[in-house]
Amino acid sequence: MKAVQLSRSYVTRLVCGKCGKPHQAGVLQGLCTACARPLLVEYDLPAIGRVLTKKALAAREPSLWRYRELLPVVEDAHIVSLGEGMTPLLEVPRLAAQLGMRRLYIKNEAMMPTLSFKDRGQAVAISMAKELGVKRLAIPSAGNAAGAMAAYGARAGMEVYVFMPDDVPLGNRVECDLLGAKVFLVNGLIGDCGKIVKDGKDALGWFDLSTLKEPYRLEGKKTMGLEIAEQMGWELPDVVVYPTGGGTGLIGMWKAFNEMEALGWIGKQRPRLVSVQAAGCAPIVRAFEQGAEHAEPWQNAHTIASGLRVPGAVGDFLILRAIRETGGTAVAVTDEELSADQQVVARAEGICPAPEGGATVSAVKRLLKSGWVRPDESVVLFNTGHAMKYPYEPAPAVHIRKEAVDFKAIGA
Amino acid sequence: MKAVQLSRSYVTRLVCGKCGKPHQAGVLQGLCTACARPLLVEYDLPAIGRVLTKKALAAREPSLWRYRELLPVVEDAHIVSLGEGMTPLLEVPRLAAQLGMRRLYIKNEAMMPTLSFKDRGQAVAISMAKELGVKRLAIPSAGNAAGAMAAYGARAGMEVYVFMPDDVPLGNRVECDLLGAKVFLVNGLIGDCGKIVKDGKDALGWFDLSTLKEPYRLEGKKTMGLEIAEQMGWELPDVVVYPTGGGTGLIGMWKAFNEMEALGWIGKQRPRLVSVQAAGCAPIVRAFEQGAEHAEPWQNAHTIASGLRVPGAVGDFLILRAIRETGGTAVAVTDEELSADQQVVARAEGICPAPEGGATVSAVKRLLKSGWVRPDESVVLFNTGHAMKYPYEPAPAVHIRKEAVDFKAIGA
Repeated sequence: MKAVQLSRSYVTRLVCGKCGKPHQAGVLQGLCTACARPLLVEYDLPAIGRVLTKKALAAREPSLWRYRELLPVVEDAHIVSLGEGMTPLLEVPRLAAQLGMRRLYIKNEAMMPTLSFKDRGQAVAISMAKELGVKRLAIPSAGNAAGAMAAYGARAGMEVYVFMPDDVPLGNRVECDLLGAKVFLVNGLIGDCGKIVKDGKDALGWFDLSTLKEPYRLEGKKTMGLEIAEQMGWELPDVVVYPTGGGTGLIGMWKAFNEMEALGWIGKQRPRLVSVQAAGCAPIVRAFEQGAEHAEPWQNAHTIASGLRVPGAVGDFLILRAIRETGGTAVAVTDEELSADQQVVARAEGICPAPEGGATVSAVKRLLKSGWVRPDESVVLFNTGHAMKYPYEPAPAVHIRKEAVDFKAIGA
Repeated sequence: MKAVQLSRSYVTRLVCGKCGKPHQAGVLQGLCTACARPLLVEYDLPAIGRVLTKKALAAREPSLWRYRELLPVVEDAHIVSLGEGMTPLLEVPRLAAQLGMRRLYIKNEAMMPTLSFKDRGQAVAISMAKELGVKRLAIPSAGNAAGAMAAYGARAGMEVYVFMPDDVPLGNRVECDLLGAKVFLVNGLIGDCGKIVKDGKDALGWFDLSTLKEPYRLEGKKTMGLEIAEQMGWELPDVVVYPTGGGTGLIGMWKAFNEMEALGWIGKQRPRLVSVQAAGCAPIVRAFEQGAEHAEPWQNAHTIASGLRVPGAVGDFLILRAIRETGGTAVAVTDEELSADQQVVARAEGICPAPEGGATVSAVKRLLKSGWVRPDESVVLFNTGHAMKYPYEPAPAVHIRKEAVDFKAIGA
């Protein structure tokens, strides 16, 4: 297993995903200066194709940094890493049998430094922030993104400011506090927290790491697409089911598939991308069904799957484009369904998924029923986090007395 | 990255670690039938040396199953895996600088399916249980071992019985419940739970997976030694600091070093193995200081580091032998020290360690002060689990009102 050292950057420029306006690479950038939509990183793919082969990849270290040429960080010394990426892609035959399927896989993003897929984006974004001279970070978050930023911020020796709605679960606060982030609880929603981060920029000089408001979290997330391709021997699955809040991962995988095709690593065929959302917050599902290009913000968003409680995503049009271009779809599932399926996954396969991971199973059940997914298709479900970071109520405890153990009752 | 398929088993026999009595491999075994001490697995190392090279290893999958020839499972179909092992070995330069050291590493065992090093032992032991026809498992546990057994038991489709003291933290119960284990809370201590597991064997026909009471958890744990050797380019560190409860990992690493030497992969030199225990439960430290071969059980054991709350270990003599043979030592640290150092690690390096992981830093501080560790020595600390599985009290929350954000106060 080798670490990789770059002799040059392969980034050519940044381009607005909406209006196409080019922006300069190698300097701090936020949203598009013309239309305030996300910027996408472009690479010199022909040059990468000349230096990087699938075979060379196989001998590299098992982290997302194995795709170094396809990532924006230039200098080794700027990489801020906790060993993230190359999470297991597990075949789940017992769960498949329960669903009447044959080739079902779970990509388990719980096996990350801060127990969620957010680490991918934060590792790459904070490495780039370091490369570009940032010393202080800020984020609005009600969940896993804050923990990830606090961890990589600490690893980089940066100051970290986190703004959370004041009803955030204790676990998320605990993590940020242990990691030394400055945590502020706001009497409002995530949007109010986002406004504080935006407004404080001049006074406090922090860099805003909100989802898709800078171009590099997306680059980290795209490695999920690279990994499933490599882990499946460069044969992509028929369907990928992805819990969609801000949607960075879905957009990232779609971008990765296009880059891999340009490199000649895969063909024209794409997995059909499925966005899963919660019935209490399903702006992408609604927009997809209406044939809209953008998603209207969802009113009164509510779901226990906190990663899906994103009423409006700045990359909405990119999510919808990725779903449509790949022949995918969007599905909403109820909190009851996703909670029950969290248990179904755990008990069938020994993986403790986040509620969002449970939601992917609920979605597949619906898609099998409607015939949209066929039982013999290969399907990858993304479990985006670990159950231990979410509240969970166990069944009532069964007590036994050591003085009078009744083994017949225990075995019943 | 390749999966490995064995053409034969390289296990030759099992041998008692205390009295040397040989036992047959390939059948279910517990403790030594002569002296009730742990059995160790012996391999045909010359034969392994003929088929397995360091170079071949480098191209294998990033899990503990890369060391397949040195593990007891024969048939691929019996492997029960969640992608465990090959956890990151991270250089921690900011923590090192705080301690005045130069070459400090953390082996982060939190990046495991159930967030602790226990997964190594359970993956291998439950795979072997499957190979030998077991359908039902039982364990006494107050912590991470139960969660690991519940996960691998579920993955294997086995029935899982867990017996816990009734004051166990909610998090440990939650995990077992989500995974579908049958959980029983006992009005007593871990020893009382262990007795129930032992007594129920005939009535309920379960296999007892208690620490070192079967020979294969040790084989899983030994991969920690194989991994640090491979990850450091087959140059072992000067010192390894290991939080010691039951001590399976320490004994396992010592066994792995001996096997690697027999294979010609490393030389005679060994890392000095350091056992870290809590001041409220330090039987190994006391026995080491007294020059005893066995450790007397500790009375009134108490510590917040639940993995260190092990008053008596059935492998005590092997732990003490490993420490002494390698020129190591044993150190007790207080709960105040290890809690404070949990934060020190998190804030310096972005890793959220278990309290046991914090204890390794407390131990190094003491050993630097006494001169036992020199500042220029290379030292590997084992973080055995993730902070999110333990209770933790964050600092009081700082509230701000969205109607009147005072950025000067935030920056102060």
